[in-house]
Amino acid sequence: MPAAPSYPELAPHMSALRAFLQEQVGAFEPELHGLVIEALAHPGKLLRPTLLFASADNGSAPSDNVVRGAAVVELVHLATLVHDDVLDGADTRHGAATPNRAHGAHAAILFGDALFAHALVLAAELPTPDLCRMVARAAREVCSGEVCQTFSRGNVDLTMADYERHIRLKTAELFAAACRAGAFLAKRSAVEIDSCENFGMRLGVAYQIYDDLVDILQTSDKAGKTLGTDVATGKLTLPLILERQKSGTDAVRIVLSGADPHTVISKETWHACFHRLDAEINAAEAALTPLGDATSANLLKRLSAFLRQASAEAQLRIPQ
Amino acid sequence: MPAAPSYPELAPHMSALRAFLQEQVGAFEPELHGLVIEALAHPGKLLRPTLLFASADNGSAPSDNVVRGAAVVELVHLATLVHDDVLDGADTRHGAATPNRAHGAHAAILFGDALFAHALVLAAELPTPDLCRMVARAAREVCSGEVCQTFSRGNVDLTMADYERHIRLKTAELFAAACRAGAFLAKRSAVEIDSCENFGMRLGVAYQIYDDLVDILQTSDKAGKTLGTDVATGKLTLPLILERQKSGTDAVRIVLSGADPHTVISKETWHACFHRLDAEINAAEAALTPLGDATSANLLKRLSAFLRQASAEAQLRIPQ
Repeated sequence: MPAAPSYPELAPHMSALRAFLQEQVGAFEPELHGLVIEALAHPGKLLRPTLLFASADNGSAPSDNVVRGAAVVELVHLATLVHDDVLDGADTRHGAATPNRAHGAHAAILFGDALFAHALVLAAELPTPDLCRMVARAAREVCSGEVCQTFSRGNVDLTMADYERHIRLKTAELFAAACRAGAFLAKRSAVEIDSCENFGMRLGVAYQIYDDLVDILQTSDKAGKTLGTDVATGKLTLPLILERQKSGTDAVRIVLSGADPHTVISKETWHACFHRLDAEINAAEAALTPLGDATSANLLKRLSAFLRQASAEAQLRIPQ
Repeated sequence: MPAAPSYPELAPHMSALRAFLQEQVGAFEPELHGLVIEALAHPGKLLRPTLLFASADNGSAPSDNVVRGAAVVELVHLATLVHDDVLDGADTRHGAATPNRAHGAHAAILFGDALFAHALVLAAELPTPDLCRMVARAAREVCSGEVCQTFSRGNVDLTMADYERHIRLKTAELFAAACRAGAFLAKRSAVEIDSCENFGMRLGVAYQIYDDLVDILQTSDKAGKTLGTDVATGKLTLPLILERQKSGTDAVRIVLSGADPHTVISKETWHACFHRLDAEINAAEAALTPLGDATSANLLKRLSAFLRQASAEAQLRIPQ
């Protein structure tokens, strides 16, 4: 995913989030402190807390509950990253696991579980179960989406509807939950809460489409093991599904068998992909209409504008 | 762990639980239905639902909330089993993983996550966050306890206090949460809720001690890869810790290096272990005093009596 735009207005929010997260170390058993500290040491883009803070922002400093909500969505995301690392690292194609990796995987699976459970503990300390419900549901969808994608590896007949459902589950649901939680915890109106949630859902879909396009596109620029991982793991994404609709299943089959995707995916298909991506970004912004010119609408639109710019830059890489 | 005693009185409860769990299949994405059905097809001893129902029972049929609570604790337990199977199956000592296993591990980790998240979704559908809080906290402790034990593998100096803490975390906290949740969801008094929780905590410790004793004891009766797994994985449990206190660290070291534990652990140490186990069972029963002769006290005592009987039988296996 592209880097996130910078948000000077949210600096106090992020600072409060960092402090809150650091306080959580002590909630774990002493043996886990090192793992927790390490997990928090590389905070990444903090995209989900950014969505939550932006959806909450009504011009004032974030409440304790909003900061707590941001910590919850970030911890859920960190837990999925911990498990993703185990899954991606378990590359039995290229040889046996080292004892070190085997030991790491054991602790990592359980540690990911503990991080996720702690996120729910924090959510359940609020007086109502709403945050728990939003977050647990989104977490279930994230993991279900990943299972679905795992099971559909190598399936050249994956339908567009299934692809759309899988990316909604694995990415957009947690984006949507972060936005909903932010607006909810900031005690905004039902219309505003729904508006933020809808934005998160569409932006999440757009982010994942962008990611999927770049995963294939960048293989024409650079070589490297980590690039083009979707095709390498038999994962059908938007360009191949659209190309299949145009040229038939054989085109997709030869790519999954190892052919360079750029020999198969036409320029027209690439343009159709970016058309779809831009339509999702537009739909995300349209979802914000009920917010008018509220601070949150402007903060959220900076994320969609950033993605639109990244999309424009990626389009320059379409092979001519 | 030993089989559970039969509970004819709880037959309607278990039947309601089975029906409720089956209804959950539809809450998952179609691709996961097979996994969910399979996970529910082999229900095991249902020890945690039994604890929950027994703690709830005030002579009437279980309320919908009580049945939901039983499903939640069972789903959390199933999720940990799914991840345990991945961990135990990842036996890199004996050769590389089959492609089939590698594929299985990927889906299994994510499916365990989804099961756990769904348990929390069910808990969060109640009007208050209490069940979420109990269950999320217990789940965090279970996983933390497992990480602690993983990290302490091969540590011949593991203290008694750390051993006690680890087994409390990995087993007793979820037993205690099941009991607390049952009494809470049945709207019992604060004293009764605490009493049930204390019983669960002590019984959980007793169960884990029993498990740990039998893990070593049964290696004298039978041979088999799955027996004596604690010693094989460098895990120090009660018999070795007590033997170390008597004979010094070298005794423990040679067992972890592969010597037959029965050449090292003395008869006196075995008797001290069972003395400790029986004391925990007695403490569990004493925790029920505030309940008087309520139905739940009698139901719960049947579990402790069952474990006392299993303990007496296991003592007959102490090498003479």
